[in-house]
Parts: sequence; structure tokens; C-alpha cells
Amino acid sequence: MYIIEKNDKKPLCLQLYQELKNDIIKNYKIGEKIPSIRKIASTYNLSKNTVERAYSQLVVEGYIDSYPKSGYIVTDTKYSDFNTDFSKGKEEKELKEDTLYDFFPARLAKDSFPLKLWKRLFTKVIDDTLDFGMYQKGQGELGLRKQVSQYLIKSRGVKCNSTQIIICNGFADSMGLLAKLLKNSNETLATEFPGYHIARKVFDSHSYKIENIPLLKDGIDLEVLKKSKSRLVYITPSHQYPTGVAMPISKRMKLLEWAKNTNSFIIEDDYDSELNYINRPIPSLQGLDNNNRVIYAGTFSKSLSPAIRVSYLVLPPSILEKFNNFYETRASRVCLTTQKVLEKFIEDGHWDKHLRKIRTKNKKKHNLMKSLLKEKIGNTMKIESQGAGLSIIINPTKQFDWLKLEKLTQKEKIKLYYAKERSGDKWQGLMMGFGGFKEEEIEKAINIFSQLWNKCIIE
Amino acid sequence: MYIIEKNDKKPLCLQLYQELKNDIIKNYKIGEKIPSIRKIASTYNLSKNTVERAYSQLVVEGYIDSYPKSGYIVTDTKYSDFNTDFSKGKEEKELKEDTLYDFFPARLAKDSFPLKLWKRLFTKVIDDTLDFGMYQKGQGELGLRKQVSQYLIKSRGVKCNSTQIIICNGFADSMGLLAKLLKNSNETLATEFPGYHIARKVFDSHSYKIENIPLLKDGIDLEVLKKSKSRLVYITPSHQYPTGVAMPISKRMKLLEWAKNTNSFIIEDDYDSELNYINRPIPSLQGLDNNNRVIYAGTFSKSLSPAIRVSYLVLPPSILEKFNNFYETRASRVCLTTQKVLEKFIEDGHWDKHLRKIRTKNKKKHNLMKSLLKEKIGNTMKIESQGAGLSIIINPTKQFDWLKLEKLTQKEKIKLYYAKERSGDKWQGLMMGFGGFKEEEIEKAINIFSQLWNKCIIE
Repeated sequence: MYIIEKNDKKPLCLQLYQELKNDIIKNYKIGEKIPSIRKIASTYNLSKNTVERAYSQLVVEGYIDSYPKSGYIVTDTKYSDFNTDFSKGKEEKELKEDTLYDFFPARLAKDSFPLKLWKRLFTKVIDDTLDFGMYQKGQGELGLRKQVSQYLIKSRGVKCNSTQIIICNGFADSMGLLAKLLKNSNETLATEFPGYHIARKVFDSHSYKIENIPLLKDGIDLEVLKKSKSRLVYITPSHQYPTGVAMPISKRMKLLEWAKNTNSFIIEDDYDSELNYINRPIPSLQGLDNNNRVIYAGTFSKSLSPAIRVSYLVLPPSILEKFNNFYETRASRVCLTTQKVLEKFIEDGHWDKHLRKIRTKNKKKHNLMKSLLKEKIGNTMKIESQGAGLSIIINPTKQFDWLKLEKLTQKEKIKLYYAKERSGDKWQGLMMGFGGFKEEEIEKAINIFSQLWNKCIIE
Repeated sequence: MYIIEKNDKKPLCLQLYQELKNDIIKNYKIGEKIPSIRKIASTYNLSKNTVERAYSQLVVEGYIDSYPKSGYIVTDTKYSDFNTDFSKGKEEKELKEDTLYDFFPARLAKDSFPLKLWKRLFTKVIDDTLDFGMYQKGQGELGLRKQVSQYLIKSRGVKCNSTQIIICNGFADSMGLLAKLLKNSNETLATEFPGYHIARKVFDSHSYKIENIPLLKDGIDLEVLKKSKSRLVYITPSHQYPTGVAMPISKRMKLLEWAKNTNSFIIEDDYDSELNYINRPIPSLQGLDNNNRVIYAGTFSKSLSPAIRVSYLVLPPSILEKFNNFYETRASRVCLTTQKVLEKFIEDGHWDKHLRKIRTKNKKKHNLMKSLLKEKIGNTMKIESQGAGLSIIINPTKQFDWLKLEKLTQKEKIKLYYAKERSGDKWQGLMMGFGGFKEEEIEKAINIFSQLWNKCIIE
């Protein structure tokens, strides 16, 4: 007897379908006939149409099949594994961040994002001229690409036009795309060592061999690179990650010469060049190249927001051609609304203003943290890298108990970041991020930190 | 003589820096000394500070170096390749789509996206409780994951909770993530043939071998799959791409049995299960599995919008563990605003309403196109697939000049899509997309199309 509740919100045909299905699974054998549609309809006082819909669903799902003259026959019943019971297991709970001070080296202060403006622009530019029913260009919206290319020409000395720009979904997505495009012609990626760990991880996850090239005081060791067989190298020439060194012009020219002579490609990661507090940003390596050997990579994560997920690549023509023949041209990598708002944001001059503002703000924080570090622990510490980006990197000048620091800070809910873990295992340094703090927080954070630091000096 | 314009908007130190740089490149030899800061300051009547900043920039960029007692020495001048001239090349122009009727099989009508509501929700949920200064969870926002998991449990019979959901940036991103996570344990992907071309292309671009398994009337050929060494198979069991067949329950159980016995994983692509116009959606394969062998993949591209770039994966525990140890947990794959708006959209019941609406709309279009096709070319055509998704697939029943059709439609600016090109080269069929049209357009589009079709029948 099937239970069909006529007052239930659940449609009758659905109720019947579920009752029938359970009955078939439990009580029928393969080849057995189930009652006719007419029979069920009259027994349960249902319309023929309702019963037909339930039967039709069971046919589509393959529980029964209809045979001329014989009616509906059960096709299979061996559903031993059939799942009728499911306990959902533990639901995740929103974890409150249990950290007092987080020195994350790539964080921006919450209030530095122009939220009100962003919302206003959203309301303005998102309208019915946009087609949300369509897949958008894989390369990104032309309007945004134009804005990005103009910015790069003007501010970074990049030689490009909008056709060479690919709008990507953050740094790892930019690198992942390159890894795919360059796969057929490259098996190895050479990188600075120490160098940015995520670049290595992306290429590794695309089955590249990673060749670590030592870092000298003026950047990657060219002599070692020349001996390597790699024809692809990833570098951060304007603000080396993590050491902060800039590659001088003469070495840049030699590197370009190497790329030209060996038909190699250089990936220039210009990740935070907007944030230079002492000097002007160093013009890009790409702008010096006359032989289309440089792939330029930039991001909005370090100066605008890592939560909007926008980065970009400037591709030389030969790689652009590969991209244009790649299946990923079929859909954009960043949602249409974000692209449109960002385009307007740059077009209306807000990006320039924002950069000036954020540079000033972060310069203050940088200087404040630097002077506090000098004041509090200056006699046991040297600064390895400063003057740019979102962190100052320091090291002890005396014997130091790193393990103890880790334990103490963990206990006090201070989150620290070690260059070692983020760049390879050679180069040590504490990455003291200031970008995520409000100015007034920095003093408190450094106060606690310096007390813990001092406990770790081995006298 | 340097040209320094005191009335120029450009900062003096920047003017001086550029003049000095050009002078060094053109006129100096390596090791030569440039004038002292004091000398330049007095010659050009500039402050010492201004000159120092220009020199400092040249030092950072590596054109000069400072030596105690000798002053500033030129470090290198071999900049033969130095780029001073850059012609931007051709700028891209926005291409007006020069198509009269586009039968794209995965397009939604422009007016089907709830634009006003989307904007209202954006204004409501995007506020300063959100932190745009931070990298967000790689897995996606918990709130959205909860909404997606509840929807999947209720509507697709998927067994999951929010911890198993990964919010991804569209189908190719979902597949790319899987390709990376499964790389160490798999070299081959088995797929239905014919089957969705993009799935093959993604895994191919991650260096998987692709094994094409023939398709039978009830889905993938299990016997061939059993003989293959692949331990990973991609299928579209509820609405096979492109043929539209559904895998019956008995075969589903056998496939799950195979996965259990061989420790294989099944990727279930449930891409358009929301759009079923005749029967209820077929419950997911994942929901039948008791051995955690199914990876479930879904998307918002087919029912909401392909322009917002949101898809999702439901991972079984062992693969979830891999994901949690993967570097891509460091940043979300979809921008924060889109995740938040979508969460609210589902939470407030708009997604359910939207699905009912879009199902009704598309059912009408589907039925209209079907009846028009039958009316106009019914005597020379059979329908291969219908009743679901965003297209009807047809084939001629008489000898047919496919090449002629291509030429004629191109001439008339009708865009057609051939199953062959999108699923492998075995199975032919014209994919007549109706989702992108307004109802009133369908009659006109089919009118023109049928005239061209009739010219291609070989009598």
C-alpha cells in the first residue's frame, strides 16, 4: 500500500514515484510486472496523467521499462549499495580568527579598499547593456584591457597594447595559464632561489621540473642560468621576493641578451611595484626588451584587493598566438561585474588616486614599524629588506632561538611569517607585514613582538 | 646641458633623472665619473635634496654606483638594445557581432538574468563586514558553500555537507583543479566518446592521456572501461553530452561497483540537470555511491549566467584532504562580491524561483523550436536529443550536403554548432540552441534555417 498524502505540498506524482521506487527496490524481482497505470490511478484515486508522469520518471531513471502488450517490467533490482541513509557528518563552523596580531606580509588594511566608491560604480556600470546570458571573451573585457595597458605604458614603462593583455583570476591563475601555454616547448622552469614559493608550486603542479638558480646581490646568478638547459625563467626583478633587491640595468640587459640568444622566455613578476616608498618604481624589464622575450605579470592584489581576484599578463606575440588557439579563450577568467567596475575605476582616475593614497598610508606604516623595530630591538636586529611592498624583513644579529620564537608567538596569538617557508629553505628572515594593520595597531603589535623577540636572543 | 623645466608639472627630480639617464646611456663610458650632487645642484639651481633623489633612483636602477671619495661612477653603458622607441601597434577594436541568428547550444537569453535583483542584493550584502584587504578561503565562502550543499542535497540527491564543496571559477577551472589534485595518482582520463570536448582539453592540457570509451545507448561502454587501465573516468550520466541519453539505475550501480572494486574515481558532470522539461531531474550518481568514489561537478553557467563564473565541486574525503594540503587553498577562486551576492540569492529563495521561471521559459522555447522544426523540415530530419538543456539535436534522414549548409549559413550570418566538433569526430548532429533566443526570434530563425536546410538535401 502506497502512502499518498493529498494534502501534502509535495506533488502527487512525486510522492507516487518515490513510493513506487522504494517498492521496486525492496519487493520486486527483475522481469516482474508492476501494476498498470490504470490500476494505480483507480486504486489511489489519481489522475491517469499523474501516474503516467511517475512511471515516465521511473523509465527515464531505468527502474522499469515498458514493453508493448506486457506493460511495465522491472529491469533490475540489484541495488545492494543503494543509499537510503545519509548522515551529513559534521558541518563546518565559521572559525573566528583567533589571532591578536597577524603580520601577514601581503595583507592590506580593511579600510584601504574603496568600498563605497566600488558600490557606487557597480550601480552605475552594471546595466542591461551587458549580456549575462553569454560566455565572455577569455582574454577579458576589451575596456578593462585598454585601461590596464594604458596604465602599464604610463607607469611601468611596459610596451604593450590591449590585444596583448590577458585578464586573469589572480597570480596563481596567471602562472597556471602560462604553464599550460608553454608546456609543449618547456619542461623546466628556472627560478630565483630563494624566490616566490607559489610560482614554483604552480609550475610544479603542471609537471614542470623546477631548477633553483642561486640569487646574488644583484639578482639571479646569470652564469648559473646560462649553464642550465632551461629556456624559461621566473624572476621578480624590481623587488626580489623575498630579499627585496632590484636587478640593475646592466644585468637586465645581459639577461635580455641571454633570452634573445637562446630563444628563452623571461617571466617578469612585477607583483608590488606600485608600492615603493623611497624611490620611484623601477621601470619594467619588459620595456627594455626589443625581442619579445619577456612575459610581464602584474596583479591588483597587493594594492587594491586580493579578494576581487584580478591579475593580468602581457604576452609577447608568439605566446599570444598560442593563447588565441587555446580552449581557454571560450570563457573569461574573471566575472563580468568585477571587470566592468574595475575598468570604470581606472578610467575615471580613481586607480591613480587610490595608488597615491595607499602609497602614502603604507609609507607611514612602513616608517612607523621601521622606527619602532629600531627603537625596541635595534641592537639585536638588522633590516634585510625595506622601503617597498607590504613588509619589512628582519634578522637577528645575535644567536637566536627561532623555535622559541615560534612557540612564544603562538602562545600569545601573534602570527609571524618566515621567509624560509615562503621562498625555499636557504634564506632566513622574518617578514614583518605592516599593510594589514591600522597605524595605531602597529605600536601595540611591535611592543608585544619585541618582548617575545628579546626572550629568544641567546646571550 | 640638461633641460629642466621649472614650470613643468613633472617633478624636478624626475626630469633630472631622465636627463641624466639619457646622458649616461649616450655619452659616458663605464668607470667614468658623473658630476657631483653639489655641482649639479648649483649649475641648475636645484635643491641638494632633489638631485639626491634623482641620483638615488639611478643607483637603485643600476646606472651608477657611489664609491667613497670618488663620488658617482657609471657602472655600465652597453645598452645597445635599449628601447627608446615603441610603436604600440594596432589597437584592438570592439567587434560588433555580425551574426543574425546564433544557435549557440549553451547560451541563455539576455533578459533571463535577474539583473535588478542582483544589483539590489549587491547593495545589500556588500558592506564593511567584508574584508577586501585579505585573501579569502581557497575553498570559497562558507555561507555560499552551505547554500550550495543544501540545494544539492534537496534537488540533486547529492550526499554532502559544506566542507566538501569547492567554489570554482567555471567548469574548466573545476576540471583543472581536479586534474592537478589527481595528477600524482592518475595518468589517464577515460571519457565517453562522443563526450564533452572541454573536459578532454582540460585534462590534456594537464598532460593526461585521454582514453575515449565508446558510448552505448545507455551511456559509457562498461566492458571497454573495465578493460582500460584508467582509474579515473569523466561522464555526464544524467544528460549525456551531446547525445542526451540518461544512464539507467542498473548501469549506475554497475559503474559504482567498478569504481569500488578498482579504487577508481568517477567525475560526474551534472552540468544542466536543472533544465529538464519532460521529467524530473534524475537524482545524481553521487547520491547512490556509498564508497566515496564519485566527484560531483556542477555549474551556475547553464541556468543563471556564464558571465558570473561560478561552478562547484563536491569532493569525497580523500580528495578533499589533498585539496586541503594544496597551495590553492591560499586564495579563493571567485571574487568575494560574487560569492556573497550568490549566497544571498540562494538563501532568500530567489534561486528556486529563478529555476522555476527559467525552466518554464526554456520549456516554451524548446517546444516551440521542436514544433517548428517538425513543421518545416520534419520529413527530412530526425530529432536525436530533446527535452532538456538548452538545445535540440537533429540530423538529416536523407543524404545531406553538410559542407553546403556550412557555406549557406555563413553567407546568411546564421551561426550553427556541430556536435562533431564539440564532442569528438564520431557522432554527428546539429545542436540547435534555443536558450539564447527570445520566443519571437525562434520562428524567424527557424524559418531562415529551414530554407537553407532544404537546399542541402540531396534528392
